[in-house]
Amino acid sequence: MTINALFAAPPALWPDFQPALMNAFAKAGLDVALSQSHAPATVDYLIFGPGGPVTNFSPFIRAKAVLNLWAGVEKIITNPTLTLPLTRMVDPGLTQGMVEYVTGHALRHHLGMDADILVQPGHWHPRSTRLAADRPVTVLGLGALGQACALMLAQIGFAVTGWSQSAKSIPGLRCLSGPDGLTTALTDAQIVVTLLPLTAQTDCILNAGTLALTARGAALINPGRGGLIDDDALLAALATGQIGHATLDVFRTEPLPVDHPFWTNPGITITPHMAADTRPETSATVIAENIRRGQAGEPWLYLVDRARGY
Amino acid sequence: MTINALFAAPPALWPDFQPALMNAFAKAGLDVALSQSHAPATVDYLIFGPGGPVTNFSPFIRAKAVLNLWAGVEKIITNPTLTLPLTRMVDPGLTQGMVEYVTGHALRHHLGMDADILVQPGHWHPRSTRLAADRPVTVLGLGALGQACALMLAQIGFAVTGWSQSAKSIPGLRCLSGPDGLTTALTDAQIVVTLLPLTAQTDCILNAGTLALTARGAALINPGRGGLIDDDALLAALATGQIGHATLDVFRTEPLPVDHPFWTNPGITITPHMAADTRPETSATVIAENIRRGQAGEPWLYLVDRARGY
Repeated sequence: MTINALFAAPPALWPDFQPALMNAFAKAGLDVALSQSHAPATVDYLIFGPGGPVTNFSPFIRAKAVLNLWAGVEKIITNPTLTLPLTRMVDPGLTQGMVEYVTGHALRHHLGMDADILVQPGHWHPRSTRLAADRPVTVLGLGALGQACALMLAQIGFAVTGWSQSAKSIPGLRCLSGPDGLTTALTDAQIVVTLLPLTAQTDCILNAGTLALTARGAALINPGRGGLIDDDALLAALATGQIGHATLDVFRTEPLPVDHPFWTNPGITITPHMAADTRPETSATVIAENIRRGQAGEPWLYLVDRARGY
Repeated sequence: MTINALFAAPPALWPDFQPALMNAFAKAGLDVALSQSHAPATVDYLIFGPGGPVTNFSPFIRAKAVLNLWAGVEKIITNPTLTLPLTRMVDPGLTQGMVEYVTGHALRHHLGMDADILVQPGHWHPRSTRLAADRPVTVLGLGALGQACALMLAQIGFAVTGWSQSAKSIPGLRCLSGPDGLTTALTDAQIVVTLLPLTAQTDCILNAGTLALTARGAALINPGRGGLIDDDALLAALATGQIGHATLDVFRTEPLPVDHPFWTNPGITITPHMAADTRPETSATVIAENIRRGQAGEPWLYLVDRARGY
């Protein structure tokens, strides 16, 4: 029997995702009718992205699940009409992209690259360098993304500490957890990477109090969620030099409004939510596998825990 | 019997290296008198750095070896008064520093970071990113430094090709060699890293002909030796867009003269010969080990082959 899958994501994504999804369905042996316009009552699965056509899930009376195309689900989880199982994306391509972004920007700060990129012509400025082993880096969040980034940073040689809300043990990584662990993890950190899901517990986890714990002049890299940082506290910490630089990929409002003070702050680098692109080919495989599981009555991959928020 | 070691490197290095060397000698159980001013005829070993007090090696009639503090030996190897065995430095700290520099700058080009660092305020510019697996990187030189960098780039996910003058086989790496191999290695490369020793064979190995082989707009990273690149050919390739960017750490004359056209070329980033600092602690261990070997009549570590030039 043909499975009806609704592509309920922004139409701009359709040209890239349609062939990738059809290809993944074929490989999984699934007979799927993929469309942007199935009648709600006939839909078996919603392939969802925020900003698409669906904001009310009530008419989808036959659907088995909402399969989110992205890792973050905070925009959909608060929707009161959503009672279906919700899965989030754990895309190997997305994880790899995140590792590349975080590793690149950590090394950029470690090597003091901006001084070379923005240097005045003729100004030869030898400086003593330190090795990554002498550079404490703290990664907040040890989910799929945080863990992969922390392990790569450790592999390059950085002195890495990982922190998560609940205790985790990861071979080769110093892991801390809970409120006391957060204080220890941030104390004297020279590079801080935020890769937590956005929940009531993590909203503004970097605030005036926690930003005061890092080494003076620390660099902040936020490819997680804009809401993890108290914007005003960050601007204040940059003004005093407590934070030396912030590289931000995510914001409370995106695109970042043109009049936002982040744009003109010389201590802030803005990247356009590029760290973790969901790649059509790799993510389509995850979507297909979840449809296969749904049809076979097997447990979902990456099912969102509504109480936990991710 | 006390061994006389002459510190024949620039005096500015003495405060850092003196304690590191004495510490390494003590650990190796060596009774060494380290000085900047032993009488030449009493010297057993010269710990050498270019720019120091020694330019004529003839008076060192008792010396067993010249132990170079740096990896490059092209400035000393042509000295006709040098007939003693010459060793070069293979410093684990230096290798690690090089890996950090090369990995950081490769990721910088891969992620298009400069566009974010130099962005106009308010200009949100989403762009499609590719994964490192789709980015061909070629490393010229597979000695200790080139090999370590190539393997780390491969570990991050880049599609790495390594090239060396004589054939090498390194697990996990596509290795090419010889003149034909060079053409294959450079063809369609998007990032080229030069880590060859400077010899008659490698002088200007990147010239108008070889620079024309890369992918259009390729990035060049040279932390090896300034002479590996034909400066004029590089400027011409940047002017046409065949080379998109060059990050140069080494130059034919250092510091790079203030009136050199590299300084004002927007396609060139200049770093102040910082990629591979010899670290006192780690390199002192190598010097001590070579003195121990010299005293025990064992073969030198990292003995320079005069015919080969490194």
